[in-house]
Amino acid sequence: MKEESIEFIKSGGVTAPRGFLAAGVSCGIKPGKKSDLALVVSQQLADVAGVFTQNRIKAAPVLVSMKRVRKGKARAVVINSGNANACTGARGIEDAEQMAAVTSSFLGCSSEEVCVCSTGRIGVFLPMKKIVKGIEKAFKQLNVEGSKNAAEAIMTTDTVPKQAALKVKIEDKEIFIGGMAKGSGMICPNLATTLGIITTDAVLSPEYLDWVLRCCVQETFNRISVDGETSTNDTILLFSNGMAKNTMISSENPHKGIFKNALRLVLDRLSRAVLEDGEGVTKVVEILVQGAVSDKEAEQVARAVGNSLLVKCSWNGEDPNWGRILCAIGYSGADVDQNKVDVFYSGIQIVSAGVKTDIKENQIRKILKMPMFSILIDLHKGEGQYRFLSTDLSERYVRINSNKE
Amino acid sequence: MKEESIEFIKSGGVTAPRGFLAAGVSCGIKPGKKSDLALVVSQQLADVAGVFTQNRIKAAPVLVSMKRVRKGKARAVVINSGNANACTGARGIEDAEQMAAVTSSFLGCSSEEVCVCSTGRIGVFLPMKKIVKGIEKAFKQLNVEGSKNAAEAIMTTDTVPKQAALKVKIEDKEIFIGGMAKGSGMICPNLATTLGIITTDAVLSPEYLDWVLRCCVQETFNRISVDGETSTNDTILLFSNGMAKNTMISSENPHKGIFKNALRLVLDRLSRAVLEDGEGVTKVVEILVQGAVSDKEAEQVARAVGNSLLVKCSWNGEDPNWGRILCAIGYSGADVDQNKVDVFYSGIQIVSAGVKTDIKENQIRKILKMPMFSILIDLHKGEGQYRFLSTDLSERYVRINSNKE
Repeated sequence: MKEESIEFIKSGGVTAPRGFLAAGVSCGIKPGKKSDLALVVSQQLADVAGVFTQNRIKAAPVLVSMKRVRKGKARAVVINSGNANACTGARGIEDAEQMAAVTSSFLGCSSEEVCVCSTGRIGVFLPMKKIVKGIEKAFKQLNVEGSKNAAEAIMTTDTVPKQAALKVKIEDKEIFIGGMAKGSGMICPNLATTLGIITTDAVLSPEYLDWVLRCCVQETFNRISVDGETSTNDTILLFSNGMAKNTMISSENPHKGIFKNALRLVLDRLSRAVLEDGEGVTKVVEILVQGAVSDKEAEQVARAVGNSLLVKCSWNGEDPNWGRILCAIGYSGADVDQNKVDVFYSGIQIVSAGVKTDIKENQIRKILKMPMFSILIDLHKGEGQYRFLSTDLSERYVRINSNKE
Repeated sequence: MKEESIEFIKSGGVTAPRGFLAAGVSCGIKPGKKSDLALVVSQQLADVAGVFTQNRIKAAPVLVSMKRVRKGKARAVVINSGNANACTGARGIEDAEQMAAVTSSFLGCSSEEVCVCSTGRIGVFLPMKKIVKGIEKAFKQLNVEGSKNAAEAIMTTDTVPKQAALKVKIEDKEIFIGGMAKGSGMICPNLATTLGIITTDAVLSPEYLDWVLRCCVQETFNRISVDGETSTNDTILLFSNGMAKNTMISSENPHKGIFKNALRLVLDRLSRAVLEDGEGVTKVVEILVQGAVSDKEAEQVARAVGNSLLVKCSWNGEDPNWGRILCAIGYSGADVDQNKVDVFYSGIQIVSAGVKTDIKENQIRKILKMPMFSILIDLHKGEGQYRFLSTDLSERYVRINSNKE
């Protein structure tokens, strides 16, 4: 076995890999916002893979970026926050195409090599004059140290920028992977995520690029929920420009394992950061279901518990209300035997064979005071399992989303 | 056509039909609660039909009452609030059976003729000494004017008792139907409801009794949601004691139409009352979906919109955020064409073919200030339709359910 290692890069982001530049600027889409337009550019043409929202109602930039990803090549992505350019009809598509065209004119490439993302309020036309000026400004500020500015410019109700980067050593080559994400509300991605831009200088086969992105998103961003809402704009893009000059990683290459692990780590960090910064969130809860008849049934149970308003409220109140968890398990649609269910809070068993154990509720209450804890549910029916990350539901979430904050 | 009429009885409840007595007393299950034990009794043996929660985890009283309903005959139902007797294992079943046995000993009937309901916190054993004393107290207070006391005793977080009654005139006979219900949180019944007790003195064939209850519940209680949570205890029982001495209403009888309409009216009143009194509710919203490929797809869309946290928050904030409605339509799982969707708020069109109409948002804001309004969604794909009632989501809902109120 040859030498392999993974090392996180503190404060690193999309410009950690060789040949990527970024910028984040303000163009005034939403008054009072520090910045709202980001640009990420690869110095040479990159391969690109993408996963997109499964919502049947897709924003214009999603439709436009899907076309780019089908061709598989891109130089850049331009992103605005403060306006989702969703439910904006033919004009929305024109506006998204114009964002790509203006960006490509500065970069000197084809507009078909520029992806577009938007995030913000649905149903409002983009202020194109402001955006065109913003693209010019961002182009002028493109920089190898621009990743944090870019991560800030894509924020909406987020309170902190979300970046991650790491270095993978395979034989004598160093490969870098960097990424940024945004998201705080409307978080329950389905086969995609909120916005996530991932860069790497690795040489990857196009098939592997697509496969590894789907695989890692499935295990990270597709297993989180703040509010059970799958947005119209969810997009995650992975650019690889090959500048690490490593031996191509493909499904035949022995090092694909470590690349996948590394990419998964970046996506896991970003997806957890999205949850921790979720609207009004005070707790992040990992739900592990095992003993289901199938992985699919385990998923049904995990999602029912993780999306139950009453369960989420009880976490917010630090109330060990395991009855609400059993109630959600019961209506999940899974074939459950109520006399077999076990439930543990961070390793301490509160329910055995469907009824409460002798444990004192105060012991559980201590666990619930932590900002992060786990729930293990064992159905004792089969071998199916699933892991899901959720959050509590606070008064603040309602305040934010009823326009009172 | 013979004479038929329906007339509501003001302040009427389960004792409006001939031969029914009721009582509601305090036995101290939950300190500080005015009353917590109700008894409804038919002076002669009645036929009984019931629908129960589809949650796979069923409370002990649900399992016990299901046995009674399978036999089809009952004299009474005993109900406690403040404790759900759910997830209480074998002891829970014994306790529910004991509630029936004690009640039957006072009434001089078989314990198999007494149904049992419980509502309240999950996972706590019933305080049986208190309950046994309470049953005796309730038996002594049984009264033809006891319906309001009974309706009060079954309340949990409800703020008002929920009763309805009416008189149906068919030929020269008068038939009465009365009912009571409770429910405020954990409201999204599935083929059943929170607790509902319906009485009638009509002579009904047993087959018709069962059919008409299922049919009317399907069109009323099964189409409401406060929080998308299907409880472990949902139960609705219909007792008919035949004391009106009308010609038997069966599937062959020409008057079944008016009886069904009358029963549906009672259930509709009670289910709306449950929504209006929902935890923290400030708006009741009727969602009508039409133009779907099938009624099932229309239902998927209506439920996705009605259970969307973000949509519910926007109603709470009186914010005409139609984008969130489109987003929920998109992820409902229905086969939607985003370029065909129309949306109306109380008759005013805000979305036409997937994009905003010229209507001023302020006009919609006026509608959203009302305590009740409707949303019509037309998918323009087929003939499927569905009607669903939902509510807003307020900070108060979270406060109540995170144990802060």
